[in-house]
Amino acid sequence: MTVLVVGSVALDSVETPFGKADNVLGGSANFFAASASHLTPVQLVGVVGTDYPLHELQALAARGVDLAGLEQAEGASFRWRGRYRHDLNSAETLETHLGVFSHFRPKIPAQFREAPFVFLANIDPRLQLEVLEQVKKPRLVACDTMNFWIESRRPELLELLARVDLITLNDGEARQLTETSNLVKAARWILARGPKHVIIKKGEHGAFMFTKESVFFAPAYPLEDVFDPTGAGDSFAGGFIGWLARTGDLSEENLRRAMIYGSAMGSFAVEQFSIGRLLEITSEDITRRVREFHRLVSFQAELGG
Amino acid sequence: MTVLVVGSVALDSVETPFGKADNVLGGSANFFAASASHLTPVQLVGVVGTDYPLHELQALAARGVDLAGLEQAEGASFRWRGRYRHDLNSAETLETHLGVFSHFRPKIPAQFREAPFVFLANIDPRLQLEVLEQVKKPRLVACDTMNFWIESRRPELLELLARVDLITLNDGEARQLTETSNLVKAARWILARGPKHVIIKKGEHGAFMFTKESVFFAPAYPLEDVFDPTGAGDSFAGGFIGWLARTGDLSEENLRRAMIYGSAMGSFAVEQFSIGRLLEITSEDITRRVREFHRLVSFQAELGG
Repeated sequence: MTVLVVGSVALDSVETPFGKADNVLGGSANFFAASASHLTPVQLVGVVGTDYPLHELQALAARGVDLAGLEQAEGASFRWRGRYRHDLNSAETLETHLGVFSHFRPKIPAQFREAPFVFLANIDPRLQLEVLEQVKKPRLVACDTMNFWIESRRPELLELLARVDLITLNDGEARQLTETSNLVKAARWILARGPKHVIIKKGEHGAFMFTKESVFFAPAYPLEDVFDPTGAGDSFAGGFIGWLARTGDLSEENLRRAMIYGSAMGSFAVEQFSIGRLLEITSEDITRRVREFHRLVSFQAELGG
Repeated sequence: MTVLVVGSVALDSVETPFGKADNVLGGSANFFAASASHLTPVQLVGVVGTDYPLHELQALAARGVDLAGLEQAEGASFRWRGRYRHDLNSAETLETHLGVFSHFRPKIPAQFREAPFVFLANIDPRLQLEVLEQVKKPRLVACDTMNFWIESRRPELLELLARVDLITLNDGEARQLTETSNLVKAARWILARGPKHVIIKKGEHGAFMFTKESVFFAPAYPLEDVFDPTGAGDSFAGGFIGWLARTGDLSEENLRRAMIYGSAMGSFAVEQFSIGRLLEITSEDITRRVREFHRLVSFQAELGG
């Protein structure tokens, strides 16, 4: 089954302790699509400027990403420049140029409107709501958000929460949104406002999935070399929703498995700059890493059990 | 099988966002013993001053903690005063008075010298080495340490590493000891210097166990109310080694289960001040929480598997 993603298509310039990359493919929709396309067909909606290296997106198209919803507008593409120091868990933003992204109004092509799975990547909640007006009865709608929208678009974000099935956000954002430092309480606060599933991402410390009845934890894969953390969260979302779309199974057991696919894709994303590693891995690599996750946390609760 | 613990027996005064406690039982040996005694007999070696409320230790003695190695010396007991703000992951030390602990020289009673399991809690590595001179062929020796000794007693700590089977330390200490920010590389560095198992504790983010061949991850239990994090690490160690001593099984599979017993005991420890919660739980509470840990991380790697 197909996944529709609406988000940013950007050019990133990133510096880490291990090297630097200039004007490489970035943005939430690119990372999500590069990840999810290993598992299921992807439809992408976003905007780029006249300066965007469209030919570089051919690698995504070749992987089954339908770019019919990628608009090219007069002006400059969204560019982000950031730096990570030795603490790879937090990016320092050096420059953000929104360019054409600041006037983005997502237009969902007619042939995308029946996508059964929808991921509203981190954009203005007003636009996320506009997308929901355009799509028809998806089986699962998930959204992401960020500190900027929590602060500046709180009412719209709360309206969105009431209309999505699932939200992914990081621990700091969950605390900010709910004004609660304890993550279990923060998750309950969000669950009471609409979503049936709340995924709280903790970067190198793994991710929780909360429902009203249960909690699941997926660790981050203990990598020896984390090269560039940019895009890990969107790659996680791509693996998570990609797996659900591939299997069409929304049982708790399969959502747990989806968390591991998400964690696996996030762990690949950080091994190279941009979507480089996501473009190079095979389905065998993914299956192997999912099994390694299983070994990482497996234990028998009962003696001889 | 019996566990011998050598460590501090202190009086703590702690302030958290949820309340305060003055002059309550604290110190690594107390937390370790309160935890491990749920699983196996414990022998405790430490020192207190003439001001120590020895009657309060009766609760430990009643649980099977042999206090024959607890020396009472002329002078003041070790006192620590600390505060946690909303970030419960890091304590702010307000006062430390070592008192009689500053002249502590552990003397292992004759009847403790054949203990098959030994935990050298966080004390001067010189003293940890002195303990090893006094015990006879234990099946497993584990140690803990801290930033102060890593800085001031590096040669002795490296000598100790070559003589222990297992070390527990937190992520910051592992990075400091190995001068490596990546925890997988830090673990390899330590494994190359002696211990067959390295446990890196990450507080609320769980704990890794590394061997040369494998890595296991145990999450922290997602508690809704963390009351006082003091002693969580030593309670973890008590659950971990207590389980190994109870079962006498040093297989990889049982070490993984021991990690979960450690995590369970750490999660109880933080629910009240001092060793309060550890004294009140039952073996049913522990079994239930171990099962909850299993549910927390369980997933099937294969569809229909």
